[in-house]
Amino acid sequence: MIDDKRLEFLKNDYEQGFPAFCGLKVKHLEYGHFEANVQVRPEHLQQEGFVHAGLIATLADHTAGYSAYTTVSDDISILTIEFKINYFKPAVGKTIICRSKVINKGKKIIVSESEVFSVVDGKEKLVSKATVTLMAVPVSELR
Amino acid sequence: MIDDKRLEFLKNDYEQGFPAFCGLKVKHLEYGHFEANVQVRPEHLQQEGFVHAGLIATLADHTAGYSAYTTVSDDISILTIEFKINYFKPAVGKTIICRSKVINKGKKIIVSESEVFSVVDGKEKLVSKATVTLMAVPVSELR
Amino acid sequence: MIDDKRLEFLKNDYEQGFPAFCGLKVKHLEYGHFEANVQVRPEHLQQEGFVHAGLIATLADHTAGYSAYTTVSDDISILTIEFKINYFKPAVGKTIICRSKVINKGKKIIVSESEVFSVVDGKEKLVSKATVTLMAVPVSELR
Amino acid sequence: MIDDKRLEFLKNDYEQGFPAFCGLKVKHLEYGHFEANVQVRPEHLQQEGFVHAGLIATLADHTAGYSAYTTVSDDISILTIEFKINYFKPAVGKTIICRSKVINKGKKIIVSESEVFSVVDGKEKLVSKATVTLMAVPVSELR
Repeated sequence: MIDDKRLEFLKNDYEQGFPAFCGLKVKHLEYGHFEANVQVRPEHLQQEGFVHAGLIATLADHTAGYSAYTTVSDDISILTIEFKINYFKPAVGKTIICRSKVINKGKKIIVSESEVFSVVDGKEKLVSKATVTLMAVPVSELR
Repeated sequence: MIDDKRLEFLKNDYEQGFPAFCGLKVKHLEYGHFEANVQVRPEHLQQEGFVHAGLIATLADHTAGYSAYTTVSDDISILTIEFKINYFKPAVGKTIICRSKVINKGKKIIVSESEVFSVVDGKEKLVSKATVTLMAVPVSELR
Repeated sequence: MIDDKRLEFLKNDYEQGFPAFCGLKVKHLEYGHFEANVQVRPEHLQQEGFVHAGLIATLADHTAGYSAYTTVSDDISILTIEFKINYFKPAVGKTIICRSKVINKGKKIIVSESEVFSVVDGKEKLVSKATVTLMAVPVSELR
Repeated sequence: MIDDKRLEFLKNDYEQGFPAFCGLKVKHLEYGHFEANVQVRPEHLQQEGFVHAGLIATLADHTAGYSAYTTVSDDISILTIEFKINYFKPAVGKTIICRSKVINKGKKIIVSESEVFSVVDGKEKLVSKATVTLMAVPVSELR
């Protein structure tokens, strides 16, 4: 459903601009699924020393968007209409992982979910979950 | 309801860690209100050249959180329970402004709204709006 | 921008099916705005004697949808893509009022907000606020 | 983790007030999980003949709330702080099913998810999904 060339393109496409600046790295992708992570640095923290909610939201949104990209052809761009994210516990640890998957694929509207885990002492803890509503827009309409 | 020393503290406290790394700058604050902005740089963009949804979410969440800080005493920390953000149009332009205000202050739960504007040719356009649910936690419980 | 015949049609169209069953009544409508209310009855309550969150959500969603209807032509139907609602305090009192307005009108996606008030001793209290993402769909595509 | 007497109590407690008025029926409950359904009647529909988003939201919110009730002692009441619900497709069919589960249980904040299915020709279709943020409040504080 998605060929290797397209997978390779999306892998590189993910790591640019703001996500690259934030240190987001692709770990795995397949049709409808996308996994990425970030190695936590001091500039990722908030005033109490926890990973900032904004970095987690960036990871959750961007990875959700790319899970949708794996399900559309290369003349389609994915834009975020809205998302909602819950924070279950303050995120600590050196690595933050995000796993996103498409939970509903309509003609124009695609909804993905992102689960975000912090890794502490080698163990994953679910720290956040997001629902992301995305729109599939022909690239030609954005130019 | 909030003294100058506390205002000065919050102004500095806002610009640290991930928000400082992203270039977020305080413009104005008063009881229940907080305004900040960011000068858009290439590393703030996404794959189509628009300001990344994650940067906008970071600005909306962080500014909302600090609008809540203006309403609590200095032994209280504010954590994000969840937020929801809508994106109305792709954000372009050199400056992004966020204005946040507390819309309901409960004993433990504070809800703030953030409106995000892009400035193009000197004119503000509403590009995004967020609702942020925050929890007031005694600092002593976080340590 | 909206003629009297269309206003009259929408007024009647609002009060049917589930909203009629729940006792929702139109109070006022104009371009981009819709106000409705409900007289609280015992069958509207939840286990603690407060107005049920589901009734408030129904009022917030339906009224938001009709605020969008006031901005489109009569060959367009409005469907809810998603909504998010915050509850600020338990709703008590004999009347619940909802005021909705369109906050962004795109070509296909319309976003409205609903503010819900309970009336106690003649005074309105904001008990809930919702953001509703709607889609404008040609009626012909639904049949 | 939850005894039979408490299960029986929650089963009956669920079906009262607004949910009873709407025809919501308990199907199954266990620790952290709650399933309910509703037989669709003409008064559950909206203007296009689909099941109204408000009924689906009521089912999603109420069932999520009771999934949280299965995890707390009987001196605790559960209130909805906020929820977000996505609608994937118009809901048709004679039966609507909701399955809710607790996805994070904090000391005061419990987050549950609800998946809503319509049953058409004996087959379940996911029509909606909600994330519900709940607060555990001692009953004594509500009186």
